[in-house]
Amino acid sequence: MKTGRARASVVGGGGYIGGEVVRLLLGHPEVELAQVTSTRHRGRPLRSVHPNLRDQTDLTYVTDDEVEACDVVFLAMPHGASMKSIDRWAALAPVVVDLSADFRLADHELRERYYPGPAPDPMWLSRFRTGIPELNRDALRGAKHIAVAGCMANAAILALHPLAAAGLVDGPVLVDARTGSSGGGRTPDEGSHHPERSGALRMAKPHGHRHIAEIQQACGVPVRMSVTAIEAVRGVQVACHVTPSRPITERELWAVFRAAYRDEPFIRLVRERSALHRLPEPKILSGTNFCDIGFALNAAGDHLVVVAAIDNLVKGGAGNAVQCLNIASGWDESAGLSFAGLHPV
Amino acid sequence: MKTGRARASVVGGGGYIGGEVVRLLLGHPEVELAQVTSTRHRGRPLRSVHPNLRDQTDLTYVTDDEVEACDVVFLAMPHGASMKSIDRWAALAPVVVDLSADFRLADHELRERYYPGPAPDPMWLSRFRTGIPELNRDALRGAKHIAVAGCMANAAILALHPLAAAGLVDGPVLVDARTGSSGGGRTPDEGSHHPERSGALRMAKPHGHRHIAEIQQACGVPVRMSVTAIEAVRGVQVACHVTPSRPITERELWAVFRAAYRDEPFIRLVRERSALHRLPEPKILSGTNFCDIGFALNAAGDHLVVVAAIDNLVKGGAGNAVQCLNIASGWDESAGLSFAGLHPV
Amino acid sequence: MKTGRARASVVGGGGYIGGEVVRLLLGHPEVELAQVTSTRHRGRPLRSVHPNLRDQTDLTYVTDDEVEACDVVFLAMPHGASMKSIDRWAALAPVVVDLSADFRLADHELRERYYPGPAPDPMWLSRFRTGIPELNRDALRGAKHIAVAGCMANAAILALHPLAAAGLVDGPVLVDARTGSSGGGRTPDEGSHHPERSGALRMAKPHGHRHIAEIQQACGVPVRMSVTAIEAVRGVQVACHVTPSRPITERELWAVFRAAYRDEPFIRLVRERSALHRLPEPKILSGTNFCDIGFALNAAGDHLVVVAAIDNLVKGGAGNAVQCLNIASGWDESAGLSFAGLHPV
Amino acid sequence: MKTGRARASVVGGGGYIGGEVVRLLLGHPEVELAQVTSTRHRGRPLRSVHPNLRDQTDLTYVTDDEVEACDVVFLAMPHGASMKSIDRWAALAPVVVDLSADFRLADHELRERYYPGPAPDPMWLSRFRTGIPELNRDALRGAKHIAVAGCMANAAILALHPLAAAGLVDGPVLVDARTGSSGGGRTPDEGSHHPERSGALRMAKPHGHRHIAEIQQACGVPVRMSVTAIEAVRGVQVACHVTPSRPITERELWAVFRAAYRDEPFIRLVRERSALHRLPEPKILSGTNFCDIGFALNAAGDHLVVVAAIDNLVKGGAGNAVQCLNIASGWDESAGLSFAGLHPV
Repeated sequence: MKTGRARASVVGGGGYIGGEVVRLLLGHPEVELAQVTSTRHRGRPLRSVHPNLRDQTDLTYVTDDEVEACDVVFLAMPHGASMKSIDRWAALAPVVVDLSADFRLADHELRERYYPGPAPDPMWLSRFRTGIPELNRDALRGAKHIAVAGCMANAAILALHPLAAAGLVDGPVLVDARTGSSGGGRTPDEGSHHPERSGALRMAKPHGHRHIAEIQQACGVPVRMSVTAIEAVRGVQVACHVTPSRPITERELWAVFRAAYRDEPFIRLVRERSALHRLPEPKILSGTNFCDIGFALNAAGDHLVVVAAIDNLVKGGAGNAVQCLNIASGWDESAGLSFAGLHPV
Repeated sequence: MKTGRARASVVGGGGYIGGEVVRLLLGHPEVELAQVTSTRHRGRPLRSVHPNLRDQTDLTYVTDDEVEACDVVFLAMPHGASMKSIDRWAALAPVVVDLSADFRLADHELRERYYPGPAPDPMWLSRFRTGIPELNRDALRGAKHIAVAGCMANAAILALHPLAAAGLVDGPVLVDARTGSSGGGRTPDEGSHHPERSGALRMAKPHGHRHIAEIQQACGVPVRMSVTAIEAVRGVQVACHVTPSRPITERELWAVFRAAYRDEPFIRLVRERSALHRLPEPKILSGTNFCDIGFALNAAGDHLVVVAAIDNLVKGGAGNAVQCLNIASGWDESAGLSFAGLHPV
Repeated sequence: MKTGRARASVVGGGGYIGGEVVRLLLGHPEVELAQVTSTRHRGRPLRSVHPNLRDQTDLTYVTDDEVEACDVVFLAMPHGASMKSIDRWAALAPVVVDLSADFRLADHELRERYYPGPAPDPMWLSRFRTGIPELNRDALRGAKHIAVAGCMANAAILALHPLAAAGLVDGPVLVDARTGSSGGGRTPDEGSHHPERSGALRMAKPHGHRHIAEIQQACGVPVRMSVTAIEAVRGVQVACHVTPSRPITERELWAVFRAAYRDEPFIRLVRERSALHRLPEPKILSGTNFCDIGFALNAAGDHLVVVAAIDNLVKGGAGNAVQCLNIASGWDESAGLSFAGLHPV
Repeated sequence: MKTGRARASVVGGGGYIGGEVVRLLLGHPEVELAQVTSTRHRGRPLRSVHPNLRDQTDLTYVTDDEVEACDVVFLAMPHGASMKSIDRWAALAPVVVDLSADFRLADHELRERYYPGPAPDPMWLSRFRTGIPELNRDALRGAKHIAVAGCMANAAILALHPLAAAGLVDGPVLVDARTGSSGGGRTPDEGSHHPERSGALRMAKPHGHRHIAEIQQACGVPVRMSVTAIEAVRGVQVACHVTPSRPITERELWAVFRAAYRDEPFIRLVRERSALHRLPEPKILSGTNFCDIGFALNAAGDHLVVVAAIDNLVKGGAGNAVQCLNIASGWDESAGLSFAGLHPV
């Protein structure tokens, strides 16, 4: 990178993930926000779409064609769009951070099954590093192309990976995921219409969610996943029901999680006695890059529930992307990610 | 009407008001639901759109063209559609209950100002009776064509009419209306998208709302109206800020309201000491045809707040329509409208 | 019972379940509400606690000591209170319907484990019939003492019983229950404080919930249960994760559920193609006595998710109690339970 | 102040305002958080009460008696407590920032009327400067004792002061205030119980709210105020209905507001064409120190609605307190207050 601040552009800044990347970059000490694209909103100020950006920037949206050379480009486009245009972005910027699913799955079979459309160019696929700092920080140092994990997948992977890596997981894990409405993106439809979506408890996807592919790839254990839309805008919580592969104690489990995450800046192990805060909840994480993780083992020791919560747009997307860029660039890993969250909220 | 149950059809039964008419008619002792139209959902069972109708009816949607002769037809179409097609519906059924704004405004000038589009045929306009039982019950007896009041207008009229009729209102009244999302209808748009609409406190219309016309027509006092979209699906509350035309006491005000509404089956005057239930709130009214009314006079006696709450889809639409039909048909005025509401909720 | 309407009294009518019994009895064609008790609110009108009862009754609360002889008494008291006072209520009324857990568990061992406090008198325990019409309607005919099921237990039992009875359930079932705040009752505490409870996704009980005992007793299969408090006032949803005991098809499963529930007035099997209404949700059930049940089998046929939804205060309590009384009394089983629910809501 | 970071202690850090002061100070570049008091939670880590503070601090609560000498003390106690103990805090720290109402009202008559309890020592009262940077920044420079404004009062004052100062306000202003549940503080009661408070639209205070005193003192115009509790945890919105004292245009109004707030770091004038963001809403302000202000003038020019929105715990309390301290201490006025808010949320 050049001296001075890195110039970063965001492709797809009219959407929710893109808007969140913009928000984080505007507060990032090492980055200067260069350009933000939105075909639909071209020429309008960013604040007209994201009112939280009032007085934060004077930028107006440009089209994708108007993006100029810069130091890093974030791609926040629908699945399938990044793989089509990757040559162009890579030509404009030495570092590309992709927030779509296009370059997440190295395993051809998994990708075919869960994303049956066109496949990415294998050369490009091999260049992308998986954007999960807690699992592959070393691979991210100096990385030029980063594929950030999916929101529910990231939460489930962070909940399960230490156990899976320690060989403590027997048979299929049930990932019960609950998600707010922002995960569905910016485009209104019947399911997102407020009178229908408000107060929902909607298990639209009881089986076979795409994020299974990422979780299995990262953890190496078979996964079943049920996804329920809940009354929230932001937030993902996963309750992972695990059968331990051998008798185990809570103390041992704490040791496993502590060893895995002791030095992680954005993982917090939750261990409260009071029922009010006993296990992680997403609401206090809104706007933060934290993943809170806790667990409960039943008395018989044969049913372990690991619960992880994140803000789906931050640790489940834009924040994780910035954390990856920080590592790739050799900056303070927490740069631009200092917001600690609110209570009450 | 013929002997036996009256056969009723609902035009526009895919929408929220139309669906509510269907729900009420299915539980009505004097009515048999004949046909329900929805161009978009033609051939599909009603429950596929309104899941509360599971096991309540086997009807499937028909198109408007398929509606047959019956005893009464309810029109739950967008504003402007009823006036275009009224000849046809009137030919099919001796009684037509219209839930749009098309035939509400007798005053030409008010209508021009607030509904600047095409005007209804004056002959038809003169035939329609205003569907507000508390104000013109006698006119509704035997009525053949009924124009049901608008949701916020109805609440404001019921709050203000007794005072206005008694000459107690000085100068313009400020109607501060708060409304849930179902009032915006069934069609998704950016403003109804859950991530945007959730938690809203959105004064989209600080001045000049169309319902002013109805309130002024009914009450004969100048009205200012600010409308705020709030976090709710159902429910309208109006807080009417009134300057009394002369010094007045709470006792006198109670006497005025009691005289006006003593025998009304669906008006409840609210007078609780506890702050928890001191003034009307919409949430306990969901599904009911009640309008709860209460008020508070300041110590100086120069600022009176009258608060009314309704379910916008029931007393603000479908329930009021059924009440009007009950009166017109000489049935028990409360027939089909017995649900009393829930607590807590 | 005497000729004329049965006189019914409600003990504990200041609480949420008791208030709901009151609401239902006030609309019941065979019942006259006699007395309602609340020590705390003695002398106050019922509407001061339950504002939905405005204009529905002129009754004021009496104390438990003031209850007079009547035809049926409903007990809506905290767990442990019914067993202490049962002699007295049984002396006052030939029919006693208890909504607490006191007489639900015939299995001594299960009761000891999940309700370790004082045990009910075995004589009284043996007299009580389990209040689950779908499982033991015959036993309820003419019953004098009825123990109504717990809210989450009832939903889970209705979801699982047909499968368990058909021998289709292998190994422990995971019941993932989600519950609104009204299930916690009327007394404020830190966990029910709005700023803390709002937007919650709180797995306060990941293991060992008391309702396991009832589910196991009714279904005869081992149960694991995780309970999550969600953002809702009313409503319980259970997602029951079942491993089928043998390869099975969706068609066979439908046959099993249809055979079990074909003639049930309050069970609705849900089978929608659209994701919007694919599986049951509680919100459209508020105020109704329905239990909506649906399921999804994965492609491999080894993971079955059965989803049931109810209003925890109605089919999970007061409504089920009234349904049981209707059967016991030989009345129309649906009497007083006709409300069909709202959409949107 | 000494060299190095200023040591700050927070009295009443178990409550919501106190917790918010703690959150802001932990991210403040010029401040070191010294001690936080809570009699009830003594000895427990701060995160056990405020889970957003996980990993942010190792401090545990101390009692008020254990507070040691420091550079600044924030008082976040119930009204009446600060005036009783002010001597002690002033002896411990050269700078005292009080968040209660005790030292807000210089006008004896207003205070007597709205806060009829014991009065503060006149000597102390005269020492306190009003904590509203936009109105009296100069007075705050070097201030030792600061009385931070009330939440709804602050929003209304910021909305009205420019107009009042320009002589543009005729007669009484109606301040229609809407407030989330966190404004009621940490102690559960019947009104804050989730099943009762959820979905509320509760005008518990239609007249005579205490904040009137502050608004009148600051703006010099008579005020009427109606307060409605709405479904939200954080957030205050005021809609101020003003009759202009002379014919005026929107252009002139913009000029007045721009002149008043052009250089203010935390006031944002909102002027969007789209209905979605036309006037300020609190939800995007959660966690921020912004006050968003917008207005709408009716066509006749005789009804002006000025709308202001804030986070009641930040610009309506803790954030405003930190901003005042920044000014008093000669630091960057925005230090510690950089969070810009979220969208969607």
